[in-house]
Amino acid sequence: MKTNEPLPLALVEILFVEDNPRDAEMTMRALRKCHLADRLLWVKDGAEALAFLQGRNALPGGQSEARPKLVLLDLKLPKVNGQEVLQRMKQDPRTSQIPVVVLTSSREERDIVRMYETGVNSYIVKPVNFERFTEAISQLGMYWVTLNQPSATLEEGPSR
Amino acid sequence: MKTNEPLPLALVEILFVEDNPRDAEMTMRALRKCHLADRLLWVKDGAEALAFLQGRNALPGGQSEARPKLVLLDLKLPKVNGQEVLQRMKQDPRTSQIPVVVLTSSREERDIVRMYETGVNSYIVKPVNFERFTEAISQLGMYWVTLNQPSATLEEGPSR
Repeated sequence: MKTNEPLPLALVEILFVEDNPRDAEMTMRALRKCHLADRLLWVKDGAEALAFLQGRNALPGGQSEARPKLVLLDLKLPKVNGQEVLQRMKQDPRTSQIPVVVLTSSREERDIVRMYETGVNSYIVKPVNFERFTEAISQLGMYWVTLNQPSATLEEGPSR
Repeated sequence: MKTNEPLPLALVEILFVEDNPRDAEMTMRALRKCHLADRLLWVKDGAEALAFLQGRNALPGGQSEARPKLVLLDLKLPKVNGQEVLQRMKQDPRTSQIPVVVLTSSREERDIVRMYETGVNSYIVKPVNFERFTEAISQLGMYWVTLNQPSATLEEGPSR
């Protein structure tokens, strides 16, 4: 899924927040392999992610009430960093129940603890090895998109 | 892993809380198939789960500072129900960062919403079909035991 293709925002299943184009391409390639990339929206900074999630219409066609099954979040992001995105999501009742998985190269204990404290659902360290990276991403995608049961209150979304 | 075998509690990777023996056996069989059952402790009610997690020495050899990589939690439990176990875990700084996955037959929206509100990391509905059940359990086990990065502060545990 390229960002310039008009995926209706209400259909987005994975919101993918990653500023590094190489990592983004690798991740999306892995998700395409297991047919999980059709409903993915890639945004490149934390401000765009929040705009999408909080319905500020900053994105083309931007409705509010976005309800992805998964937010896949890098930590080191331009404009608004990953921790702040997570914090704002968990504080907002419209987005607090959406699963957030941090996908990062940081193994720093400070980052890990801080993310769990902020309410991250899961923390994944990007494997350095290419094959293991691909495998990890498809495992992650399958788990959150097909196995985990999201809150339908978000999926069907009561209009405010 | 049978509960009467002396697995040192500090080595427990999966704390499995399930009162139904048939569901418990099916789950443990699926985890054994992917070699994830060696460090599993099965407890049959919410009080035992909390005793283990909060180190009340109610279990044989019961140390405190238990740090499993995953708590796999049924909802309808004797003594202390699943929601209360989750709530107490998330309120206690010693256990708040341990990932908790609810594994239940309930698809009730009320349960799902309440669990996410209480801070569950993931919510899985038990598949009815035997093969899909086995597959779901191994997918779940692999994700949380081998892919997810837990907080090392819990793993290495600062002595209080």
